[in-house]
Amino acid sequence: MAAVPPSFLGTLFAVSADPSVISFAGGLPSTAVLDTVGIAEAAADVFADAGPAALQYSTTDGYRPLREFIADRYRRRVGLDITAANIQIVNGSQQCLDLVAKCLVDPGDAVAIEAPGYLGAIEAFSLYEPQFSAVPVGEGGPDLPVLERVVTRDRPKFFYAIPNAQNPSGLTYPEEARRAVADLLDGSETLLYEDDAFGELFFDGRARRPIAADLPGRALLSGSFSKVLAPGMRCGWLVAPEEVLAQFNVAKQAADLHSNHLCQLVLHRWLTTHDLDTQCRRVARLYEENCRALVDALDDLCPDLAHTIPEGGMFLLARLPRGISSLALFEEGVRRGVAVMPGPPFFLGGGDDVIRLNFSNTNPERCAEGIGRLAGALTALG
Amino acid sequence: MAAVPPSFLGTLFAVSADPSVISFAGGLPSTAVLDTVGIAEAAADVFADAGPAALQYSTTDGYRPLREFIADRYRRRVGLDITAANIQIVNGSQQCLDLVAKCLVDPGDAVAIEAPGYLGAIEAFSLYEPQFSAVPVGEGGPDLPVLERVVTRDRPKFFYAIPNAQNPSGLTYPEEARRAVADLLDGSETLLYEDDAFGELFFDGRARRPIAADLPGRALLSGSFSKVLAPGMRCGWLVAPEEVLAQFNVAKQAADLHSNHLCQLVLHRWLTTHDLDTQCRRVARLYEENCRALVDALDDLCPDLAHTIPEGGMFLLARLPRGISSLALFEEGVRRGVAVMPGPPFFLGGGDDVIRLNFSNTNPERCAEGIGRLAGALTALG
Repeated sequence: MAAVPPSFLGTLFAVSADPSVISFAGGLPSTAVLDTVGIAEAAADVFADAGPAALQYSTTDGYRPLREFIADRYRRRVGLDITAANIQIVNGSQQCLDLVAKCLVDPGDAVAIEAPGYLGAIEAFSLYEPQFSAVPVGEGGPDLPVLERVVTRDRPKFFYAIPNAQNPSGLTYPEEARRAVADLLDGSETLLYEDDAFGELFFDGRARRPIAADLPGRALLSGSFSKVLAPGMRCGWLVAPEEVLAQFNVAKQAADLHSNHLCQLVLHRWLTTHDLDTQCRRVARLYEENCRALVDALDDLCPDLAHTIPEGGMFLLARLPRGISSLALFEEGVRRGVAVMPGPPFFLGGGDDVIRLNFSNTNPERCAEGIGRLAGALTALG
Repeated sequence: MAAVPPSFLGTLFAVSADPSVISFAGGLPSTAVLDTVGIAEAAADVFADAGPAALQYSTTDGYRPLREFIADRYRRRVGLDITAANIQIVNGSQQCLDLVAKCLVDPGDAVAIEAPGYLGAIEAFSLYEPQFSAVPVGEGGPDLPVLERVVTRDRPKFFYAIPNAQNPSGLTYPEEARRAVADLLDGSETLLYEDDAFGELFFDGRARRPIAADLPGRALLSGSFSKVLAPGMRCGWLVAPEEVLAQFNVAKQAADLHSNHLCQLVLHRWLTTHDLDTQCRRVARLYEENCRALVDALDDLCPDLAHTIPEGGMFLLARLPRGISSLALFEEGVRRGVAVMPGPPFFLGGGDDVIRLNFSNTNPERCAEGIGRLAGALTALG
């Protein structure tokens, strides 16, 4: 967040606690579609069945039946040829960012990342002092000539990408871009680090094949239950080649011995007594409704804003008219009761000409009202 | 664990799953004294009261009422002058080891650590490539002339110490040693990093004043609910000066956003509806009984082993007769159905003349039988 003035963070924090401000600046899933009752029942069942063992220390790699469930789902859903042995449980996929960088990045090593890119990844990687190489992404996926140049010239340790409904842009790599990325990285020194936080949240319910499936032994793939089951339980996973996973396991053990065992048991119980696909559709349907309302409001009320049209996920990106700063729009918006996320934190430089809008934690009425306020702010600045 | 041959870890792992081997090699709390029913009830109450909010993302510093409970307990119990603002919740105190080193240690920086020292700390710190300076500890606490020389000569970033019922030795610093350590570090460039994993487990129930209380602004202090409430929930905390805590909070956010929110709510509910002191006494009483049985068995059956006499905690350390290797004793013991933890992993070099014995996860009958087998192994090697 070095890209924004310190005052921004203070205002953002104040805004999140102010009910009079309609916020598109955050990134929380909606709690309205979480199955609290089902998870409470799963917890009660775990205590009844496992007893004190539910509270004991556990293994670093994670609860084996949960890892088997995840591997089985990958095999069935996207044809990924893995077993529980390829999976490490972590505290949400955020922990993968930290530990992957810890295992693979020495100060000065090159790391390739999308522009715009996920803010949490930039922050986590930055602590290991890499040299970042930016790869612009757009409707067609990553800029392939740039990616090729970066891979050849900078030899990054990995290319970090979110091919499905990316945060912050909402963009999804088309099929042909996935194949091209796999072809380009295959045989290079650069691993793919594919973060799939949103792959269960496509509005059409269709699973997209991970690029990792076409880079056996050369790709890391992270996932999470945070977006569809329980963000606060902090449960995600990393799929990785055997030798990377062994190193990652050592780092995980040093970091916190193992992820919360009780919650792994509870999630596994829920997953084996409920239908995850039904739950994902429930979440995706709500987000689709919100996304349409947001897109309609933008097109009606802010026709000067070009924006992405997400196929899923929780975010879209809008480009501001020439001469309007996203940081200025943030300040003016807050004065008018609407908050948006300025662009600079998602870039390694620049980015003040775009804003990120969240649509998971809102509703159609708030979208219309909030974007109306944003239109006022744009007019005031224009 | 570079200090032990790879075969050792394989055997240790196999032993832990073999019911015919009586193991003193592990380090698990006893699940017999965990309040599974109370925690299950607390979980049900949290779901009923908080609803979906129990599953949502939360703040990086941790659930404020839980931090207030911890601060209040420190004030009341040991006179530590702190508030919730001085506390960061983490995934068990193990995560403090990783993140403190991440914040404070650059490759080549000096770090002072007790000898013997906590294996998990040596492993976690090692990933940040410090130069370790060893400070021997004994019945009287740390070797003060050595500590003074280390602080003056090596200028370590911190001195990592477990003054209460240390793992692996079971030793507790006497009052005068605590004051001496505070005096010695006061005004130096070296912070104290006081790990208090076992301070609630003194057999006499008496709270020992943390050294940190006499080093305001110059000490880190970590604690945990793992030993008395729920190891698998991975909930601990760090108390630190404001400027260190701010840096630590950034590292925590990059590491995994925040610790498991649901479990923080559940622990807080349990803590405000039960008496933690009663629970601690319950655990400590069981461990005291086991410790006495272990000490009696050692004195009766292995009179050649000098050993520490713990005032609390879960471990004691025994010194082997001259010429007997702890690694050889481990191998011979396993053949005879008893496992002990060899010394080398607890030292930065040497240590093959001691073994660590765990007494939390056993019972008096197993102590007598297991130490009988150990006596046989010693005779065979002697």
